[in-house]
Amino acid sequence: MSRILLLGAGRSASSLITYLLQHAPTEGWQLTVADVNPAHLLPMLAAHSAYARAVPFDIQQPERLDELVLAADIVISMLPALFHGPVARACVRHGRHLVTASYVSDEIRGLDAEARAAGVLILMECGLDPGLDHMSAMQALGHIRARGGRLTSFKSYCGGLMAPDSEGDNPWRYKFTWNPRNVVLAGQSTAKYLENGHPRFIPYQQLFGRLATLEVPGYGQFEGYANRDSLSYRAPYGLDNIPTILRGTLRRPGYCAAWQALVRLGLTDDSVQLGNAADMTWAQLIEAYLPVADAETSLPLRFAAYLGLAADGPEMQRLHWLGLFTDTPVGQPDATPAQLLEHLLTEKWALQSGDHDMIVMQHLFDFELDGQWRQRTSSLVVLGDDATHTAMAKTVGLPVAMAVRRLARGQVAQRGVVIPTQADLYEPILAELAADYRIVFVEQEQPLQ
Amino acid sequence: MSRILLLGAGRSASSLITYLLQHAPTEGWQLTVADVNPAHLLPMLAAHSAYARAVPFDIQQPERLDELVLAADIVISMLPALFHGPVARACVRHGRHLVTASYVSDEIRGLDAEARAAGVLILMECGLDPGLDHMSAMQALGHIRARGGRLTSFKSYCGGLMAPDSEGDNPWRYKFTWNPRNVVLAGQSTAKYLENGHPRFIPYQQLFGRLATLEVPGYGQFEGYANRDSLSYRAPYGLDNIPTILRGTLRRPGYCAAWQALVRLGLTDDSVQLGNAADMTWAQLIEAYLPVADAETSLPLRFAAYLGLAADGPEMQRLHWLGLFTDTPVGQPDATPAQLLEHLLTEKWALQSGDHDMIVMQHLFDFELDGQWRQRTSSLVVLGDDATHTAMAKTVGLPVAMAVRRLARGQVAQRGVVIPTQADLYEPILAELAADYRIVFVEQEQPLQ
Repeated sequence: MSRILLLGAGRSASSLITYLLQHAPTEGWQLTVADVNPAHLLPMLAAHSAYARAVPFDIQQPERLDELVLAADIVISMLPALFHGPVARACVRHGRHLVTASYVSDEIRGLDAEARAAGVLILMECGLDPGLDHMSAMQALGHIRARGGRLTSFKSYCGGLMAPDSEGDNPWRYKFTWNPRNVVLAGQSTAKYLENGHPRFIPYQQLFGRLATLEVPGYGQFEGYANRDSLSYRAPYGLDNIPTILRGTLRRPGYCAAWQALVRLGLTDDSVQLGNAADMTWAQLIEAYLPVADAETSLPLRFAAYLGLAADGPEMQRLHWLGLFTDTPVGQPDATPAQLLEHLLTEKWALQSGDHDMIVMQHLFDFELDGQWRQRTSSLVVLGDDATHTAMAKTVGLPVAMAVRRLARGQVAQRGVVIPTQADLYEPILAELAADYRIVFVEQEQPLQ
Repeated sequence: MSRILLLGAGRSASSLITYLLQHAPTEGWQLTVADVNPAHLLPMLAAHSAYARAVPFDIQQPERLDELVLAADIVISMLPALFHGPVARACVRHGRHLVTASYVSDEIRGLDAEARAAGVLILMECGLDPGLDHMSAMQALGHIRARGGRLTSFKSYCGGLMAPDSEGDNPWRYKFTWNPRNVVLAGQSTAKYLENGHPRFIPYQQLFGRLATLEVPGYGQFEGYANRDSLSYRAPYGLDNIPTILRGTLRRPGYCAAWQALVRLGLTDDSVQLGNAADMTWAQLIEAYLPVADAETSLPLRFAAYLGLAADGPEMQRLHWLGLFTDTPVGQPDATPAQLLEHLLTEKWALQSGDHDMIVMQHLFDFELDGQWRQRTSSLVVLGDDATHTAMAKTVGLPVAMAVRRLARGQVAQRGVVIPTQADLYEPILAELAADYRIVFVEQEQPLQ
């Protein structure tokens, strides 16, 4: 019997919990789901009371954390990433394994030796991005290497978007399926990547204007902007000397140019409170960003002229759709520009009942094989089933859950702080995702053009 | 007898120390200058040993701070502003007055009631900017109010620049007379001001492109960009309902457009380390910021095209002069862009022996008087005497020193946390600056155009 503790049961944990409940009887698991508000879990767990229970848990109570970890064999943390430090330390202290879908922080990395000494696995980055990206890229890289291919370029993109049937009349073709604040503040640093052996830097103010165009089989075109640090992927992927490496985020075409207008206007700044009244209108707010001008020209025309946009172009169409030039109140007093924008977008980009989300991931590998240059693409599209089992919840939660199953069975030998880049860990997970959930990468290969 | 303690005797304290030494015998002062490195003070103090001594002092030693404050009647802190909290608390604890040239922080503001109860004056913002700006603006405002004028607009600019005889061949007409890091990172937030009763916001990425042009009698044209928060000046100046208020920073014409190019390229970002080698060249660094392009076009031409600048225009002229397109190594490994830029500018914008700096301040007041609209300007230009008694050192240190003299004489009745906006404090200081140092504002008034 394995005792499994899940810390944090928010929206993105739905598919994870469903998987754990489904396999608990046959695998002999006792499942404890610990959440700050366990009441909402009761209906889901009711039919599984023989092997599953929900308990209240607050990360601010260290004794409670110790008590729960001590009573488990494997801990899964779906808490916000900043709480993983105390959880991981409790796991090392009590000799329990930990699995999360979050990035390895410096704090977690520092626990590696201690975890190894304690015989503990701290398996991080085991969700979607990070997680499935590592697994699928390493698998494809393994195939290329096995054939004797010499890799020269690796580019990898991922995005959480909307299924085509759920975009509605929204010209951004985007709704929030993830933390809105993170979307509004995305990219506020200098992006670093490598191209043909040379470092490339893109600062925030240029980021959404420097795009790649991608084609995903059956789903049309996407555009990708560079993530903050692509270079950090070289070492874990064994690509220390690769000339070109880039990681990016996917949006539907046109999103980035319109977002760039918001950045250039100044609406994504989160460093200063504006001192505004809550009943200031959006038109007044936008006006405050424009140079003083003659009152004869309308606000949208002056806005477009200020930013050098076509008055009836695709960027302005998207900005009009947001209601930037209307008398709608901004709704929050003394807020930062980014807070006001998030407030607006949270309404405009809200998921509607019946909407399906969509996860898109694409890797592009350039390599030389037998004197020929070839390009291989691995493309994944996952559609959400419904509002509970979203594509996001499935792709974040299922890899975690499958790793836990293997760990509980004693099929994972690694110890210390680990990410899923080893074939004996990711191969079975990718196979199970494909067989049971039709989460499958489409592989294409062609001569490099 | 008054015992005066000066904490921190860096470059900007030279004129302050000279003033204190000059007046100590006649005013009956015993002066203690406490600095982390007191050795450099010994030559200056040698001829004044009867009433002045230098002692070692490290802000990290709280007992030493207590000991020094207890042995003084008035404390002057020229330490970096972040150290004023512990100094002010020690002053309140021991019932000693404190004078500084730094902004009132929330921490200092929180000591107001305690300081009043202890009969202690904490006089802040008593240098140049903040300091002389408050004094001169309040004096001019007082004159306008006394005549019955109704103020509608107050704009105020200040800059630390180079005297015309010391600009050399530097097309920026700028050298560092103040903390280089602060100059490189200036404006990285959204500037807020009021115009005709409406809030105006300028984000960082637009700041150096939204300029005012100013004319200072005898010194030609300057350009001004908006400071971070102009609104906070309304209450202390008694201008709560003024329709237009703006505070800004002065540069010589052309500086801001060229600086804007550096901002847009991304060289002022301080949030990410580039992972560069120290022997990366400036040309390589600039190349890394540009989109990949054909090698046929030269780097400066591609740079100019990318940012939409004229290839032989004034911005490119200034950037060429910095050596951005040369094989000079950037000189620092794994630095932020802002650190690399600061490293370059610290060499290019270094003061040369014999250089004179220049402080420029200008207030512009629009007001209605007897049914007529008028504009009054108050303009100050101060030139440095030499490398020790710079314009910066004089204008920062002398108002502090003069306030201390009045305080030691018992001529300052205010207690608690105070800035110099009251006439009985600033009138004698402005008069002494004019009479003894020819630091005089030129007042002009004309019908508003």
